[in-house]
Amino acid sequence: MTDVAVVGVGMIPFGKHPQKTLVDMGSEAAYLAIKDAGLSPRQMEIGFFANAFAGRVFGDFTIGQNVFWKIGINRIPVVNVENACTSGSSAFFLAYNAVAAGQVEIAIAVGAEKMRVPEMGLLNSGQNEVDTQLGLVAPASFAMRAMRYIYEYDAKPEQLAQVSVKNRRHSSLNNLSGFRDLVSIEDVLAAPMIVDPLTRLMCCPNADGAAAVVLVSPAIARRLGRSVGVNTALLFSGSYENPQDQICWETDYRACRTAYERAGIGPEDLDVVECHDAFTICEILHYEAMGLCPIGEGAQFAADGETEIGGRIPVNTSGGLIGRGHPPGATGIAQVCEIVTQLRQEAGQRQVNGAKTGLAHCMGGDKEGDTKSCTIAIFSV
Amino acid sequence: MTDVAVVGVGMIPFGKHPQKTLVDMGSEAAYLAIKDAGLSPRQMEIGFFANAFAGRVFGDFTIGQNVFWKIGINRIPVVNVENACTSGSSAFFLAYNAVAAGQVEIAIAVGAEKMRVPEMGLLNSGQNEVDTQLGLVAPASFAMRAMRYIYEYDAKPEQLAQVSVKNRRHSSLNNLSGFRDLVSIEDVLAAPMIVDPLTRLMCCPNADGAAAVVLVSPAIARRLGRSVGVNTALLFSGSYENPQDQICWETDYRACRTAYERAGIGPEDLDVVECHDAFTICEILHYEAMGLCPIGEGAQFAADGETEIGGRIPVNTSGGLIGRGHPPGATGIAQVCEIVTQLRQEAGQRQVNGAKTGLAHCMGGDKEGDTKSCTIAIFSV
Repeated sequence: MTDVAVVGVGMIPFGKHPQKTLVDMGSEAAYLAIKDAGLSPRQMEIGFFANAFAGRVFGDFTIGQNVFWKIGINRIPVVNVENACTSGSSAFFLAYNAVAAGQVEIAIAVGAEKMRVPEMGLLNSGQNEVDTQLGLVAPASFAMRAMRYIYEYDAKPEQLAQVSVKNRRHSSLNNLSGFRDLVSIEDVLAAPMIVDPLTRLMCCPNADGAAAVVLVSPAIARRLGRSVGVNTALLFSGSYENPQDQICWETDYRACRTAYERAGIGPEDLDVVECHDAFTICEILHYEAMGLCPIGEGAQFAADGETEIGGRIPVNTSGGLIGRGHPPGATGIAQVCEIVTQLRQEAGQRQVNGAKTGLAHCMGGDKEGDTKSCTIAIFSV
Repeated sequence: MTDVAVVGVGMIPFGKHPQKTLVDMGSEAAYLAIKDAGLSPRQMEIGFFANAFAGRVFGDFTIGQNVFWKIGINRIPVVNVENACTSGSSAFFLAYNAVAAGQVEIAIAVGAEKMRVPEMGLLNSGQNEVDTQLGLVAPASFAMRAMRYIYEYDAKPEQLAQVSVKNRRHSSLNNLSGFRDLVSIEDVLAAPMIVDPLTRLMCCPNADGAAAVVLVSPAIARRLGRSVGVNTALLFSGSYENPQDQICWETDYRACRTAYERAGIGPEDLDVVECHDAFTICEILHYEAMGLCPIGEGAQFAADGETEIGGRIPVNTSGGLIGRGHPPGATGIAQVCEIVTQLRQEAGQRQVNGAKTGLAHCMGGDKEGDTKSCTIAIFSV
């Protein structure tokens, strides 16, 4: 396995894009990433396209080929990838592997999703699973975790709300984010209850969006400059590893542990983190899995402002899923875009000063007791 | 890149499985392949699951995780892959790459599809594409190619029909095939016309089905025995490379040429071939792209019986898509199962005597003038 670097990132603003197709959105992000890299479309050697719901919503398929065609990328291997909320980060994982294994020198991963369409419906972790059929859609499943967390550690809804307040504040500094209005703890608690204790402002909003990254071998990276190294990228699937414990995704812990081992660093070495705040409780549980704070102290850690820009370890400086909005095909790649932007010191008003090491963490397909998919990538300059 | 071997294959009979879910079908095939390999589920290190239409038909996603969970495969990377009719072979390509690159020693690729459901509707090459919206569904697009071929080379509908006659004959010898009745040239020509000149018996039937293969490194293969080497596996996407020529998929030619180069062999070295006979005209055009016969002579090559079992180069000994039925998630993997079975000399009544080298060819997402995806794998013992 050789080193891999990210040399180009591209995103369209997340939010509503009623006039744009998935192909429009994906190809625009791809073009921006290639341009940012100083490369040309014809230099791409393999392409991965991530999308989770276009089959369900539009009845569509083989969209990646169309995305790449639209900007003149052809004659290369193209694979369409789906992995629920980790669809984008799974595409990134495959692109990383293709370069790390020496199969290609230049790979592109693109993710796009149109969520702001009436056909979208309620998210779940698989339409045909028994728990879904019994009503356990995503907010209900995460609310159970939040309730258990509150019971176990005497956490307060105000502490959960603080995650939304922080991520919206970060989001207000990011013109690629879809939800940029500041909110207060009172606003978050007074928002309509979705599933107790999660109010609407504790849930990430659906958004249309697209993001892309270009990954290259060290030789190409040296030529291009402005590159950010990928120390490791991994993908694990869980499977009822720990079905009795609602506040510990075993897969999450195992993935974090493995990622640190492979990268040869620990949580104390991180300067900036993007993580999967699909609901405020997720971000808190992920703090603990990532080792940013001790188990049971995540809610207080958020409330103390430790994860704000300027705090001990800024989390979701982009605004996260709660601030940016969550198009699952694109989210995992957008996280990479944010970490790379931070490590290049190009994040403007939301820059974490001198950030040198960052981590992008994503999770997909919550199931009773565990997650279907967890991806982690660690970056450094 | 290291060598890769297939050590296990598994399939459920293609056809109608109204009582089985996708997860039932996929996990059954996966279990059969692992058992065939003499391995256990917990030894799998990475899993790829292929499906093309479950999003569209069932609104479902992250199915691969459930397929693997059901037989006790967990804690490994799992990626869901879609690439139209090459979905299965794309999953095979990724599994091959994971082993070839030394990332893992054991990989599994599983494909499953439920097509015999009322929601399936007409196939096309992407619901949201202009040509589809104008009515160019798959049979129409391939009929245009057949018409042009007939015009250009003075081919006869009887010659096209011969492909169906042959593939149904092969199918009658394969108890995993879904469509096993013998048909005559007269039957094929008298069947209801779908799009002139393609009658219903010249089109592959929809089927439910699942197939799986286990791929391993040389070290593991030596220990297990009964392995079949993978000389190369590749995936190319096209893109209007040659949009004016209805009887030459440029991508198909380029993929075949590249595969032979990488494997260091030529078409004359092949003993058995599985190819993508979605419509009879496809098989004929693929003969020419694969170099089995000169360009323009494919129809006569079929009519002369050269591609029957016992002929110069048997093609689609399994029955192909026309005889076996076509569940796109599974088809590309089922092709690999057939080649491996032939090279192990375990194909029973349809055995090609002494077969030592075989090729599996698949194509997906026909577009005006080219294909979206073409996969080829070459095997030898």
